[in-house]
Amino acid sequence: MSKKAKQVKVNQVKVQDIFWSRLQDKIIDTVIPFQERVLNDQVPGVAKSHAIENFRIAAGLSEGEFYGMVFQDSDVAKWLEGVAYALTVRPDRELEERADAVIDIIEKAQQPDGYLDTYFIIKEPDRRWQNLHECHELYCAGHMMEAAAAYYEATGKDRLLGVAQRLADHIVSRFGQGKERGIPGHQEVEIGLLKLYRATGKEAYREMARFFLEERGKNPDYFYEEKLKRGWQHWGQYNTDHLDVTYNQAHATIYQQDKAVGHAVRAVYMYTAMADLAGEDGDGKLYEACVRLWDNIVEQKMYLTGGIGSTAEGEAFSDDYDLPNDMAYAETCASIAMVFFAGRMLETEPDGRFADIMERELYNGTISGMQLDGQKYFYVNPLESVPGISGKIHGYKHALSERPGWYACACCPTNLVRLITSLGSYAWSEGDSVIYCHLLMGQRAELEKAQIAVESEYPWQGKVSWSIAPRTDREFTLAIHIPGYVDLQDAGTEVRVNGGKVELEENMKKGYLYLTRKWEEGDRAELSFEMPVRRIFASQKVREDAGCVALMRGPVVYCFEEADNGGDLWALRLPGQLQAESFLCREGVLAGNICLRMKGSRLKSGRSLYSEERPVKEPAELVAIPYYAWANRRPGQMRVWMLEE
Amino acid sequence: MSKKAKQVKVNQVKVQDIFWSRLQDKIIDTVIPFQERVLNDQVPGVAKSHAIENFRIAAGLSEGEFYGMVFQDSDVAKWLEGVAYALTVRPDRELEERADAVIDIIEKAQQPDGYLDTYFIIKEPDRRWQNLHECHELYCAGHMMEAAAAYYEATGKDRLLGVAQRLADHIVSRFGQGKERGIPGHQEVEIGLLKLYRATGKEAYREMARFFLEERGKNPDYFYEEKLKRGWQHWGQYNTDHLDVTYNQAHATIYQQDKAVGHAVRAVYMYTAMADLAGEDGDGKLYEACVRLWDNIVEQKMYLTGGIGSTAEGEAFSDDYDLPNDMAYAETCASIAMVFFAGRMLETEPDGRFADIMERELYNGTISGMQLDGQKYFYVNPLESVPGISGKIHGYKHALSERPGWYACACCPTNLVRLITSLGSYAWSEGDSVIYCHLLMGQRAELEKAQIAVESEYPWQGKVSWSIAPRTDREFTLAIHIPGYVDLQDAGTEVRVNGGKVELEENMKKGYLYLTRKWEEGDRAELSFEMPVRRIFASQKVREDAGCVALMRGPVVYCFEEADNGGDLWALRLPGQLQAESFLCREGVLAGNICLRMKGSRLKSGRSLYSEERPVKEPAELVAIPYYAWANRRPGQMRVWMLEE
Repeated sequence: MSKKAKQVKVNQVKVQDIFWSRLQDKIIDTVIPFQERVLNDQVPGVAKSHAIENFRIAAGLSEGEFYGMVFQDSDVAKWLEGVAYALTVRPDRELEERADAVIDIIEKAQQPDGYLDTYFIIKEPDRRWQNLHECHELYCAGHMMEAAAAYYEATGKDRLLGVAQRLADHIVSRFGQGKERGIPGHQEVEIGLLKLYRATGKEAYREMARFFLEERGKNPDYFYEEKLKRGWQHWGQYNTDHLDVTYNQAHATIYQQDKAVGHAVRAVYMYTAMADLAGEDGDGKLYEACVRLWDNIVEQKMYLTGGIGSTAEGEAFSDDYDLPNDMAYAETCASIAMVFFAGRMLETEPDGRFADIMERELYNGTISGMQLDGQKYFYVNPLESVPGISGKIHGYKHALSERPGWYACACCPTNLVRLITSLGSYAWSEGDSVIYCHLLMGQRAELEKAQIAVESEYPWQGKVSWSIAPRTDREFTLAIHIPGYVDLQDAGTEVRVNGGKVELEENMKKGYLYLTRKWEEGDRAELSFEMPVRRIFASQKVREDAGCVALMRGPVVYCFEEADNGGDLWALRLPGQLQAESFLCREGVLAGNICLRMKGSRLKSGRSLYSEERPVKEPAELVAIPYYAWANRRPGQMRVWMLEE
Repeated sequence: MSKKAKQVKVNQVKVQDIFWSRLQDKIIDTVIPFQERVLNDQVPGVAKSHAIENFRIAAGLSEGEFYGMVFQDSDVAKWLEGVAYALTVRPDRELEERADAVIDIIEKAQQPDGYLDTYFIIKEPDRRWQNLHECHELYCAGHMMEAAAAYYEATGKDRLLGVAQRLADHIVSRFGQGKERGIPGHQEVEIGLLKLYRATGKEAYREMARFFLEERGKNPDYFYEEKLKRGWQHWGQYNTDHLDVTYNQAHATIYQQDKAVGHAVRAVYMYTAMADLAGEDGDGKLYEACVRLWDNIVEQKMYLTGGIGSTAEGEAFSDDYDLPNDMAYAETCASIAMVFFAGRMLETEPDGRFADIMERELYNGTISGMQLDGQKYFYVNPLESVPGISGKIHGYKHALSERPGWYACACCPTNLVRLITSLGSYAWSEGDSVIYCHLLMGQRAELEKAQIAVESEYPWQGKVSWSIAPRTDREFTLAIHIPGYVDLQDAGTEVRVNGGKVELEENMKKGYLYLTRKWEEGDRAELSFEMPVRRIFASQKVREDAGCVALMRGPVVYCFEEADNGGDLWALRLPGQLQAESFLCREGVLAGNICLRMKGSRLKSGRSLYSEERPVKEPAELVAIPYYAWANRRPGQMRVWMLEE
């Protein structure tokens, strides 16, 4: 296995895209300031945060009690990471100063030995590191490391980096071979340590990440023994019941695990770190472990929207093919984690199947978590919603049909901020002689081998061009991901370089088109393909999609809302011979989106609950909108999978 | 409104039926002795009962603590009621002696003031009558009254009747206008009081029943005020939170309620008493209240199998048309309660819509609660089951795919016993000049106006005859319920009296065929009709049945099991032009049942989770079995509502 392609840093790429720039603006103009006010407890009517105040109290700058979740610190870290990326998108001196002020507080809250976790500093100083199972100290540390690496890359300022290093050194001094054999209850520190390793070059951090990954599951009773030893627990009344650690993916070693199980975000954060380390170390065995888990998720456990973790209990993966649409959990954070995982897999092996899923997540299951105006958020992303049932009846209580403004457990909103502001870094990776372009996004990238300007009409049209200004006079390859759904045989699918048609079949490998040449200033590659509406069928193993079809156009999954189609969406039928027309929505909150219009039918029945009379079919004009844009109008039903005539 | 038709007593009818006699035998030979051993704690491996021991302790015949639910007494009462009916089916001196011995203990447990509830006698003697909301004292009293009336009717022995009267007198002395204005948290005493009224003729019991019904909901805060007053609660930690009493149907008066809400068994026990009293008193206003609630259940809230109370939370009615098949609660007891309700409605107004539902319940949603061998029971009766999901995953935990042997809350098994052993009394009612026959069941009935022998091939064939030996020389009417699904226009549908064809249309009224004549000894009425397989469609308001069809033949709902059809039942399709052949199953556990065989198809797809390839249809031979007989073979999937090609 070859050493992986290099990650591209956030500040190497400026997104200038018809789709994503609007979202980045929304994040920067609305979400980051809103979240800043929430973290400072300045927004009435949303769940109280207290997260920055916790740091102030820990720093001795304020009096008071800790408030919030045991992992409240991570909200601040994730916000800072988002701010760091935002500053690369659009410098903002005042925002940077305010972030610096927060970092100042964090630095003051750090203990002399490097320890940093406001819950334990303020509330239970004698109980540090006793409850890795429940208490998220390593999780919060990981987020602080990610924030520190990001802030350092974005601003060149190393104050938070220093905090993170002292914290990491503290962790390294405590855990490892021949030291404490602890592992985190919620994986994340592994990702943070690897980022910190790349930011500082310190091998100890990489080794620490490997230890946490490889130690996991060696002793499946580790958390149980930890519980018995300390004699207390954080959640609920202390008991000596045995623990089911499949929830934490601690039931077997990472090499033994071949099914994605347990809490989806924990799982995919772990897989992300595994993939990162596999690439970093050229570790084929570890990479194969990643592929096994990837395949189980993507081929057995993923919604069409990219949603994963289908059951509410434990926010967890369910059995293979158990993908209820109306009861879906499909946490926003879990879809975001899949982008991380896909990104790391692509660095090791540029295979279109990873890029396809990254795209699926980005255009669907991640951003469905945010209202179009950036002000409200879904934690849970169902593929069917029925107000009156959803969010209300047993089994459906988690699946709200309207986005709330904030959450007591506020992981998803801050996670969206850091994802969308750092999007550029997922679009590229750079090998010795190859530049990989994973996402068809309008952008300017400053890469080692070239400056590349991408113009794109994606995701609404299959029209993308790359203008290259090489920085080397050696030959190199531009490898472009062509989405897996593109029909290479279609007459409308073509790639031209400087106007000359490229033979597709012979230059394609695993979903990437390899264009190798001695690139000259002003060279231009152009990709174009048709974007018909595609009908998608689920495997017959998926009970909940039986008899149904879903619509996609490009990477975008569509859904049907009551606002356009009236109620009882399940009584609508799509024709076997579907002719859907796409149109640009020009007005209202959906303006700028390509929507679909088609002829279908609606079944009508008499008043009886049950009858021998076959329901009557009446013609109906149906409209579908992008899934991510659902629940932005008046409350109403939504459905992705539609029955056929 | 006319005074209602008279109820027929259990001992007036001997069931001799190809379908029900086998079940009655199973109940008498297997279930009653099994339950007797359970109630006496002689069955290892099932949930401990302790119910008879509680009475022994309360009687001072044994030492020990109360064990079980606060309503544990009712299991003994319901068993005794079942025994009483069983003795009318088949006398059994030893069983009667053992029942007498239990009654002896109960009599000794009764307190000098008439009070009888072992939980409070043993455990909390100072807390009697303080917690009507949670503590089921009136509920247990109601069951004791029902048992007493039944035992008196069956055996002529009045010892238990005396116990019940002293208990009822105690209640009458305590509650009512100008006394305590209490109402039961779980309705049932109203039914018991009316039965006791009919057994004893004491008006005070009927008035007490009316008080409990009419007092309900007058002060929706009654239970809340009761809670604040007593300062303790039975379930959970004491709090002063406001109570949602829609669960108990105490949110509005019985005249204001027009939607079936809350705990389904509580609700339908109340409606049953309302209907009983409406008929008893010729009370049109009360009857109209019953009709409103009946219609809401039957036209908006009932499964095809008769199951009601679709949500597990609160074992309750959900919103109109919210009828999930896989997450159905559909408690066995709630279906049984619907038989009671239908029976009482029929006494007031012989309308086929009530008899049709009684039949739907009897042949489907009630008896699905019992394994064919009578040894295991379902509390919950879903219309779709998927082992691995059902009984296991969040939202589905209540919906088991195999029947357990007993329950800590053992209401359903004992309820089935008393229903099936008293079936004869639901088959008839008798007005001044009319004998109504509600059920097409083989039986011998000793009625006031005639002795009637019914021969029947129901539910497997539409062939029933009535042989009449009149006891009067006056003209009277035999009114026969012809099931609503029977096609009166069909050439195969005919009724003959002494061989002469009867004009159907002009003699039918609301589902009953009225045959008026001066009946002579040896007169014989014969009904015959075809019994084709019928395809049933649900209203387009029912989301969970969208695109599906269900099969019925006669009153029997059919289902498809994995044992006959292989797995992934949702991948099967029934043809638009269905030709189903019925056949008698001759072997195995299903022997004696008419099953269905038909050509259909199975969809097959490739290995991908999602694909643009339309699944391929392959021919498949499909088999359906009666719904009530599901889960009697190896564990596997089951489905009632099937997708169409």
